Amino acid sequence: MAVHLHVTRPEDLHAVAGVSIGVTEAGVRKANRKDLTVITLEPGAVVGAVFTQNRFCAAPVQLCKQHLAAGNDIRALVINTGVANAGTGEAGLQHAFAVCQAAAGLLNVKPEHILPFSTGVIMEPLPVQRIVDGLPKALAASTSDNWTLASQAIMTTDTLPKATSRQISIDGKTVTITGMSKGAGMIRPNMATMLGFMATDAAIAPGLMKALAHELAEASFNRITIDGDTSTNDSFVVIASGKAGTTEISHWDSDSARLLKQALLDVARWLAQAIVRDGEGATKFITVSIEGGRDTAECRQVAYAIAHSPLVKTAFFASDPNLGRILAAVGYAGIADLEQSLIELYLDDVHVATRGGRHPDYREEDGQRVMKQDEITVRVLLGRGQAQDQVWTCDLSHEYVTINADYRS
Amino acid sequence: MAVHLHVTRPEDLHAVAGVSIGVTEAGVRKANRKDLTVITLEPGAVVGAVFTQNRFCAAPVQLCKQHLAAGNDIRALVINTGVANAGTGEAGLQHAFAVCQAAAGLLNVKPEHILPFSTGVIMEPLPVQRIVDGLPKALAASTSDNWTLASQAIMTTDTLPKATSRQISIDGKTVTITGMSKGAGMIRPNMATMLGFMATDAAIAPGLMKALAHELAEASFNRITIDGDTSTNDSFVVIASGKAGTTEISHWDSDSARLLKQALLDVARWLAQAIVRDGEGATKFITVSIEGGRDTAECRQVAYAIAHSPLVKTAFFASDPNLGRILAAVGYAGIADLEQSLIELYLDDVHVATRGGRHPDYREEDGQRVMKQDEITVRVLLGRGQAQDQVWTCDLSHEYVTINADYRS
Repeated sequence: MAVHLHVTRPEDLHAVAGVSIGVTEAGVRKANRKDLTVITLEPGAVVGAVFTQNRFCAAPVQLCKQHLAAGNDIRALVINTGVANAGTGEAGLQHAFAVCQAAAGLLNVKPEHILPFSTGVIMEPLPVQRIVDGLPKALAASTSDNWTLASQAIMTTDTLPKATSRQISIDGKTVTITGMSKGAGMIRPNMATMLGFMATDAAIAPGLMKALAHELAEASFNRITIDGDTSTNDSFVVIASGKAGTTEISHWDSDSARLLKQALLDVARWLAQAIVRDGEGATKFITVSIEGGRDTAECRQVAYAIAHSPLVKTAFFASDPNLGRILAAVGYAGIADLEQSLIELYLDDVHVATRGGRHPDYREEDGQRVMKQDEITVRVLLGRGQAQDQVWTCDLSHEYVTINADYRS
Repeated sequence: MAVHLHVTRPEDLHAVAGVSIGVTEAGVRKANRKDLTVITLEPGAVVGAVFTQNRFCAAPVQLCKQHLAAGNDIRALVINTGVANAGTGEAGLQHAFAVCQAAAGLLNVKPEHILPFSTGVIMEPLPVQRIVDGLPKALAASTSDNWTLASQAIMTTDTLPKATSRQISIDGKTVTITGMSKGAGMIRPNMATMLGFMATDAAIAPGLMKALAHELAEASFNRITIDGDTSTNDSFVVIASGKAGTTEISHWDSDSARLLKQALLDVARWLAQAIVRDGEGATKFITVSIEGGRDTAECRQVAYAIAHSPLVKTAFFASDPNLGRILAAVGYAGIADLEQSLIELYLDDVHVATRGGRHPDYREEDGQRVMKQDEITVRVLLGRGQAQDQVWTCDLSHEYVTINADYRS
């Protein structure tokens, strides 16, 4: 079902020095599936992360924020799928902390050195004992080559694992960036997505990591939507192990720093777009690009109005160029002084609407031709200024309803 | 498909003195269907109306606003279905005005005395000549008993016509209120719904009509959503013909005025809820009631977050008590200082969550029992204050996707 998303070959997923991954079957919710992942970091790794803005943020998200604030000396990430440990009240916090305590005991570090992550059903209690029992097995299986296995173990309704690598040369040394993500529904990240993890062996100053995670998320995970539902568990983590032997980056204005940041951004965007390509029921990958706004905020607002409209999304599913629905979404996006007579609409290279009405040369066959593609760009010119922004989304199909009507069964 | 919505018997739809309705087949978009309705008003009728806030508001909406501002001496409403005359630029305005001119010529009034309404496909040109040719036929067929026929003629994807009447006694005289509405998709009115028309033979001071229309819409059409898409053509009109022989109401603080307003509100709410009951693909009618907010605005914000969530809506379709999705929607509704530990969630009488986590006595069987009903109330207590508000919505089913993937074909 996924749109132009192929499983990355294990040999193309490069290990990141200083980062080790173990995966096991803990039986969190279903038997016979890998559902527990532990990522251990050698001392000296620095971590940046951003989390969901959902006020019902999950217990592990709350703990992650506390642990990052308390020194940010992170030695392991523990990730379970099956149960989200969100909407679980005070007990949920105790459960998440118990997982951190158990992992800390095995690694001989403090609970504050552990970051916990959960994804799955909301409002069900976390089966703590199963996870605690699984930790030694996961650690025993830990190797630096386990990214492929981990990207499978963090899946929920994903149909394909999502992971990618880049290698660049800095100071004459090879620097690796590898990342993985999961998520296919409840996707409208507001800071980050369900789960996204990236690691590099480049050395980056600890003080830069939080802003880096934020900047990467803004240009990737914070520009995607599947169904407009912001999850309770969105977490995006960037790790720099510093094991490549390159000079520590303490500002972003050198050539090598810019090269690294571009490669990091490239991986983050690939991971974010992979989530859309594997969106629940997705049959099309749609880029919504808004230009001519007064600022990027209003461009993004219009882009999301289009990207969230069930009517626009079902029209894409049907390859039906019922494109007035896009104009309607532009109109209700919330820009109070929008002038409809200035609006231009393109579908790829086809000029559909001009001055707020159908373009005289527009022919339905042309719209139809683009709508039948599985990758489409919607381009709207607002005629208000110079700003622009874009988001990535997918269509709304029968399969989305089927998946979400059946998710827990 | 419609949820507890039955066609009102013609003998239960009472004529309103001073209001006459003619319906014909103009062939606007499809042959062999009644698609043109003309409502004529005797001199002295007063009209209040509210319209969509969509910045891509349709040409007829723009003209309606102008004509109401220019004296509000309205003598006829012309309503076509098939083509929305939205996203049609300058030509659309000329087309809508040409319809007003033609109707004015036939009625020997000015074009400013005509209100035009259109509903149907966006960004297609209005076939003006067919409508102009249909006007004499519609007027020739005009009678005061045509509410049933008109409620059928204004339908688009509606499966059932929506119309209702109430009669009350004021000053010893019978006062009638009759109304009709249409709409099943692109429903998230922001001022009013696709099309709603109400008429009473009570006498109401002209100066009260605009505020009355606004107040009625706020408590009815502005509290419903099907898919979150605010239409380009939403229009809600209240007509008072003054023919019942009752004293003109010039303020709302008498007993008879309150009685009338309650009856008007009752009709408006019935018409709005009828749209949800006939929502595209709807199998359930859901009331989302939010209590304990600081103000009604934030209650409404949370209610709409729940009512728009595709995950919540598909869970209702599946009768799956995956109720954590409701907590997630509460969390992302945009209340920055929401305390999850204060949240209580009920499904009808079942206490699902307390202090932000699952209630210890909650059993999935109880949630399941309520989810299987076709009328459900979701009740969330925010624990922040005394305000409350509610909205009405429906579930998201396969049929919604089918209808909107096929709408134009």
